[in-house]
Amino acid sequence: MSEPPIDPAVAAALRELGSPDGTGLCIDGVAASTLAATFGTPLYVFSAAVLRRRVAAVKAALGPRVELLWSVKANPSVPVTRCLREAGTGIEIASLGELQVALAAGHDAAAVRFAGPGKTDAELQVAIEQDLCLHVESADELAAIDRLATSAGRTARLALRVNFAAEVQGSRLRMGGRSSRFGIDQEQVPALLQQIAARPALRLVGAHVYGGTQCFDANACVRQAAALCAAVRGWEANGARLDELDLGGGFGVAAFHGDGSFDLAAAGRELSALMHEYDRPGRRWFVELGRFLAAPAGVYLTRVVRQKQSGGLTQVAVDGGLHQHAAAAGVGTIVRRPPLLVRAAAPWAAGTTAVTIGGPLCTPQDQFADRLPLGPLAAGELLAVLHAGAYGLTFSPHSFLSHATPVEVFVDDGEARLARHRGTPADALRGQVR
Amino acid sequence: MSEPPIDPAVAAALRELGSPDGTGLCIDGVAASTLAATFGTPLYVFSAAVLRRRVAAVKAALGPRVELLWSVKANPSVPVTRCLREAGTGIEIASLGELQVALAAGHDAAAVRFAGPGKTDAELQVAIEQDLCLHVESADELAAIDRLATSAGRTARLALRVNFAAEVQGSRLRMGGRSSRFGIDQEQVPALLQQIAARPALRLVGAHVYGGTQCFDANACVRQAAALCAAVRGWEANGARLDELDLGGGFGVAAFHGDGSFDLAAAGRELSALMHEYDRPGRRWFVELGRFLAAPAGVYLTRVVRQKQSGGLTQVAVDGGLHQHAAAAGVGTIVRRPPLLVRAAAPWAAGTTAVTIGGPLCTPQDQFADRLPLGPLAAGELLAVLHAGAYGLTFSPHSFLSHATPVEVFVDDGEARLARHRGTPADALRGQVR
Repeated sequence: MSEPPIDPAVAAALRELGSPDGTGLCIDGVAASTLAATFGTPLYVFSAAVLRRRVAAVKAALGPRVELLWSVKANPSVPVTRCLREAGTGIEIASLGELQVALAAGHDAAAVRFAGPGKTDAELQVAIEQDLCLHVESADELAAIDRLATSAGRTARLALRVNFAAEVQGSRLRMGGRSSRFGIDQEQVPALLQQIAARPALRLVGAHVYGGTQCFDANACVRQAAALCAAVRGWEANGARLDELDLGGGFGVAAFHGDGSFDLAAAGRELSALMHEYDRPGRRWFVELGRFLAAPAGVYLTRVVRQKQSGGLTQVAVDGGLHQHAAAAGVGTIVRRPPLLVRAAAPWAAGTTAVTIGGPLCTPQDQFADRLPLGPLAAGELLAVLHAGAYGLTFSPHSFLSHATPVEVFVDDGEARLARHRGTPADALRGQVR
Repeated sequence: MSEPPIDPAVAAALRELGSPDGTGLCIDGVAASTLAATFGTPLYVFSAAVLRRRVAAVKAALGPRVELLWSVKANPSVPVTRCLREAGTGIEIASLGELQVALAAGHDAAAVRFAGPGKTDAELQVAIEQDLCLHVESADELAAIDRLATSAGRTARLALRVNFAAEVQGSRLRMGGRSSRFGIDQEQVPALLQQIAARPALRLVGAHVYGGTQCFDANACVRQAAALCAAVRGWEANGARLDELDLGGGFGVAAFHGDGSFDLAAAGRELSALMHEYDRPGRRWFVELGRFLAAPAGVYLTRVVRQKQSGGLTQVAVDGGLHQHAAAAGVGTIVRRPPLLVRAAAPWAAGTTAVTIGGPLCTPQDQFADRLPLGPLAAGELLAVLHAGAYGLTFSPHSFLSHATPVEVFVDDGEARLARHRGTPADALRGQVR
């Protein structure tokens, strides 16, 4: 019986990891089996080489005028963030915890951009003290920043996040284009520009648009950027000056079987043309990316714990699960499809036996695959979820059922080093007053 | 303009908290506004009085023969777990972290029951050493327990979890009734009973059934219990002895507008009758409950941070969100409905203005209410999610965006005490190797 071909998204992910056909899964030259044996499972692995190649590819496609921002929410690992900084990315944060990661990874506070629709006064106060650039999401927030900066005797640097009336189609999660918690409705911007100009504690540095994440239509990403450029031209014609334009991001990355790929070359051509058209002296251009830079650099490794026959199917329990990689279990999706799951021993080979694979949680939602032809699986066999370098552990309810958090390993130039210690059962008591 | 009536599930939740009409929200006599002022927001509050009343109500309904088990996964708070132990519940765990909570709350290891489909050898080893009762989920797991107990020179105490062919209808999440990672298919049980009888390291103490969670049909819960009783009678007629029968649980608790209520009296009548019919000397009866005991005892408090008009709607950003109470943001549900959300200042009053309420995360999924007539809301106003005592913080991706974890407060006899310290931004670095 000939095996079916493997899913194209799986093949592309393996190719990008540089894992050769005919061998077990390799991450930057290190065998996944060696990592699992050395560090135990479950385990996240991040590859410096893939991170660097992603940054280089985006820079090559978007041209020399663009500055990349790392959306650290995608993976607040210090080694990952440091590696991306060294490869030339700036950083965009959404909390004071992420600021800690940015600083630990070597970023200057003044180069950090702080986004998010619910920044509290306490957070804004720290941000103003440390001279972060603030992405403003509402008139209400602008008033708070003015009040806090004035009373601190500081000048707050601002970029306005704009919500455009036209929907950006093609994104899985839309954040703009209608009533939105994110950004300031386009028609409200001129009045705010006048307010900012009148307030000594406020200094406008630019504008920002972000229409949605997991966008697989390069044209949709370009449309939102074009809308920003056109609007800014109008506002500047009326006397405002917005030097720094953040064109957003949201470039899609395959997460499930059947997912397409993002046409980076097309996006690069269009965005370069846009930056050329709207360029001027003093202008800085930014694109912010999280998943697109980091997802392909990560692998989540988990081992088969038990197998059984039930109701005619092979049910497999693994030591990882939804609590550590919720996205791979389909959390946040409506129609479940298999994640990019392979056998570490033979990642390029399709299996012949359907298996249903889930984790240790006491909920049927803790399932990575439903009758996926990946088996037969050996006892203790090592499985790998590819494209696990973004929205992995921290996107997951990792305290649910109080299992120990997994190890993280950072692989650079063929060397693997511990990046996050494994948790312990006693962590279930941490922070509790007994 | 007369206000619409408040949702019946909201009214029932307020009544159960003992929060009087005409005042602000009270938890066991303590004002929510005082708790928020003392401990800050966001904040979880748990009421000892409600926990005790829930245990008493279930015991009254199910009769004197039943022993209650607390499913600590619902809320691994030590004070909550200790309060429930003192009120007379045993405990059921699903990880070694939960074992730590059980022990810290004063349970004896030998009284702890350990369930879950993916227990690793390392976990089983600890469980056998400490003489926990093991809920066996597969033949594969049984073989591992036999091997580990034999090599440790111990006897492992076992209860078989059984998966019945007939579906238990009426549960939101079904875990049995077809191919399942949970439990042993009914027809496979006799062979395993023979194996256990032949192995000196294994001692069978009982059987267990658990068909699903959030069951609002009392009859459905009873059907699964009846199936277990009938099957056990057959197995005992063939020489097995299964003293301890765990009839499951999964009693539903309203979480969203429009949710029904569980008919505890009906379930109690039916389960009592069943226990009477199948009783015999040496028999022990168990029912395991998590959400049903704890959800009504908890409140999640969060404050309005910003408000704005966008696309014709009032958009409200609060300081809590999906990362701290994912269930209230609809994670795990297909059709979103509002959670049991009230204004702390006037919980019994319906509002007149529709508001859309979300948290600080950079995703549209971080939303507690979509055009809910709860407003108008004052700046800084305190909001409360009711029925937040189960599947709250630990069910949530609380590291997502690296915000500090919320405080937990335990209220007993009118006194509030800190139960979990607030996290700090530096927690984003905890466990990381920099």
